[in-house]
Amino acid sequence: MRREGKRTFFYEEGAWIRSRACMAGQKESEGPLGNTFDQILEDDLLGQKSWEFAESEMLRRTVELCASKADMSSGDIGALLAGDLNAQIISAGFAARQLGVPFLGLYGACSTMTEALVVGAALVSAGYLKNAMCAASSHFCTAERQFRAPLEMGGQRPPSAQWTATASGAVLLDEAKTGGMRVTHGTVGRVIDLKIKDANHMGAAMAPAVADTICAHFEDTGRCDRDYDLIVTGDLGIIGRDLLMELLVRRGVPMDDKRLMDCGASLFSPEQDAHAGGSGCGCIASVLAGHVLSRMERGELGRMLAIGSGALLSLVSSQQGESIPSIAYAAAIERSQRA
Amino acid sequence: MRREGKRTFFYEEGAWIRSRACMAGQKESEGPLGNTFDQILEDDLLGQKSWEFAESEMLRRTVELCASKADMSSGDIGALLAGDLNAQIISAGFAARQLGVPFLGLYGACSTMTEALVVGAALVSAGYLKNAMCAASSHFCTAERQFRAPLEMGGQRPPSAQWTATASGAVLLDEAKTGGMRVTHGTVGRVIDLKIKDANHMGAAMAPAVADTICAHFEDTGRCDRDYDLIVTGDLGIIGRDLLMELLVRRGVPMDDKRLMDCGASLFSPEQDAHAGGSGCGCIASVLAGHVLSRMERGELGRMLAIGSGALLSLVSSQQGESIPSIAYAAAIERSQRA
Repeated sequence: MRREGKRTFFYEEGAWIRSRACMAGQKESEGPLGNTFDQILEDDLLGQKSWEFAESEMLRRTVELCASKADMSSGDIGALLAGDLNAQIISAGFAARQLGVPFLGLYGACSTMTEALVVGAALVSAGYLKNAMCAASSHFCTAERQFRAPLEMGGQRPPSAQWTATASGAVLLDEAKTGGMRVTHGTVGRVIDLKIKDANHMGAAMAPAVADTICAHFEDTGRCDRDYDLIVTGDLGIIGRDLLMELLVRRGVPMDDKRLMDCGASLFSPEQDAHAGGSGCGCIASVLAGHVLSRMERGELGRMLAIGSGALLSLVSSQQGESIPSIAYAAAIERSQRA
Repeated sequence: MRREGKRTFFYEEGAWIRSRACMAGQKESEGPLGNTFDQILEDDLLGQKSWEFAESEMLRRTVELCASKADMSSGDIGALLAGDLNAQIISAGFAARQLGVPFLGLYGACSTMTEALVVGAALVSAGYLKNAMCAASSHFCTAERQFRAPLEMGGQRPPSAQWTATASGAVLLDEAKTGGMRVTHGTVGRVIDLKIKDANHMGAAMAPAVADTICAHFEDTGRCDRDYDLIVTGDLGIIGRDLLMELLVRRGVPMDDKRLMDCGASLFSPEQDAHAGGSGCGCIASVLAGHVLSRMERGELGRMLAIGSGALLSLVSSQQGESIPSIAYAAAIERSQRA
């Protein structure tokens, strides 16, 4: 049976993590996870004419690096499942143009990486695809002008603001047991909106969606927090992480604080002036593809749950006075006995 | 085996069309297909505060109508796979908020409906979902200001311009054989770009992607145009349709002109001043969910191929001088013997 409960997919044949790659910008490289990225960008533009195309170039390089780590060329990619924060996901679309691979464009804002894993694992495990390249990116300079204000304005950022990571990550899922790690379950999110309207308070907007997906995942699978060595959220930031803990207590499923790692709250150090932490599609994408899965590969984690959350606002919806609907997707990943 | 060739999914267990619904605006209702829509919008705003939220409301109503035709409430929907042309797909995201259903956000521009069918049929056929609500929408007033210029400017439209349809369509796929029609194959698109830069010449930008996907579909499945009673493209318009025919001749797979129906070229009559025809996610979504599948249900079509094509540009990419990359997804649908 490939489904559990109402919203959870079970990948019975396995979707194995064959390779992974991540890149990040200068500021991210100066944070606590700075040495976990495969490559650090030399500058914000990467030789491109705009930040948008720099982001696209970063994503393309990340996908190619991930493929090369699996001794593959881009022509061997079954399909690229990817998206980003830009209107009409141009970073992913233009990267797919350069790569020339079959492409499924997704939009889940900062949850896009886990949305890609949930869908990609299904397509691989059931045999529709031999492999699926799941990837996402974000860029501080493209996101600020997309959702908030022109960077040139130099506006003051409130303490609740998160810093969109300039980063990208890719995970190649394969039907063959090529590594020791596999995606076992995926839980699809629902759009939740508790009427937060402040685009500088994303953690608060997204925490309810994360709580909803965690509860659904536990209910569908019969698991609880103790079944996971690590629960990785992205990107609630410091404020959103606290709110999530409180929401879970209220729903009667309190979580062990030590088991929870938020990528946004982990990406920058307090001295880096990133306020409530990191955010952006590339945040959980790069931290999962790098730091977290490296820990699992080293045997430090047996089973983990990755939950990406996205705020489904746009500049237009904000300008029209709407609140911020959010969504979260969960992917359970585990390490099997060494092959 | 669930895959054929390089890019085609085969839905061996079947993804059955359980119900379908479509809505359209006033102008669309005055065209040749005017009597094929389930509902005609009373006005452009539908009681909402903006065109964006009117589009979202139209999509929500279409999904609810489609569910009600299957004697379902929205709570019975396995997942909604949907998207639209707006930045950050807010029409779909806000509709999903109202519906409260599991949601997979997709972005394929005007190809979104067929992208949803390709992914949704995979998830249903393999048993991840009991049913998948595949839907897409577009609205003339939101798309014009999203991609071209403010409507208030009253700019002259060139003859190659297409008119974004105010329309939406939904198709509910189910694992149970509930109707006589099923999705059998899906072919994933690649991003193709022959360097068209004019956002008022979408048919020319998209025709090469459609040709690429048709050729891949034929190669993967061993089929040819004569294996289909109808090949439905959306939304090349009158100019793009001619270009597609020429591209297919050049690629050595000429198509019988009578077998090809383009939704964009069919939606409006010449007197309606829509220039090169209709376009928008809602064009093929509504024409497929209404007119075309009704023809199949009546027994006039045994097997058809629906190919949605999308132009993956944004206002930003246009302003930065980029050309228009495009993609197309194909879904093969056939009528089985009556149950």
